[in-house]
Amino acid sequence: MQDLGKAVGTLIRKRRKALGISQEKLALLTNIDRSYVGRIERGEVNLTVEKLYQFAQALQCHARELLP
Amino acid sequence: MQDLGKAVGTLIRKRRKALGISQEKLALLTNIDRSYVGRIERGEVNLTVEKLYQFAQALQCHARELLP
Repeated sequence: MQDLGKAVGTLIRKRRKALGISQEKLALLTNIDRSYVGRIERGEVNLTVEKLYQFAQALQCHARELLP
Repeated sequence: MQDLGKAVGTLIRKRRKALGISQEKLALLTNIDRSYVGRIERGEVNLTVEKLYQFAQALQCHARELLP
């Protein structure tokens, strides 16, 4: 299941870069610590569905788009 | 965000019923305690993405279909 975390993290990173925002900015938007955002993007964290929606809102997409 | 848990729980229940399987059977399939499955369906739990995929696999659908 670690691949799942990596796949979700990659989709978050791709979406963040497509919007041209930094990890710092995403951390601010989601009210999550910047280093934790980095861990999430590297797939080191098993996100909750609630956090997934927080990211989707900050990344202006549906949470489904952040699922592989 | 509690509504999110309830909405996901409702989708899981709907899908389970559409497949005609009991909570006990779903608990077996997901290797999760039956009472915990009940709490998830009632939206009392903030699922992880990993657990969401576990349910999707047991319910023979994509995890996206379990997101409102």
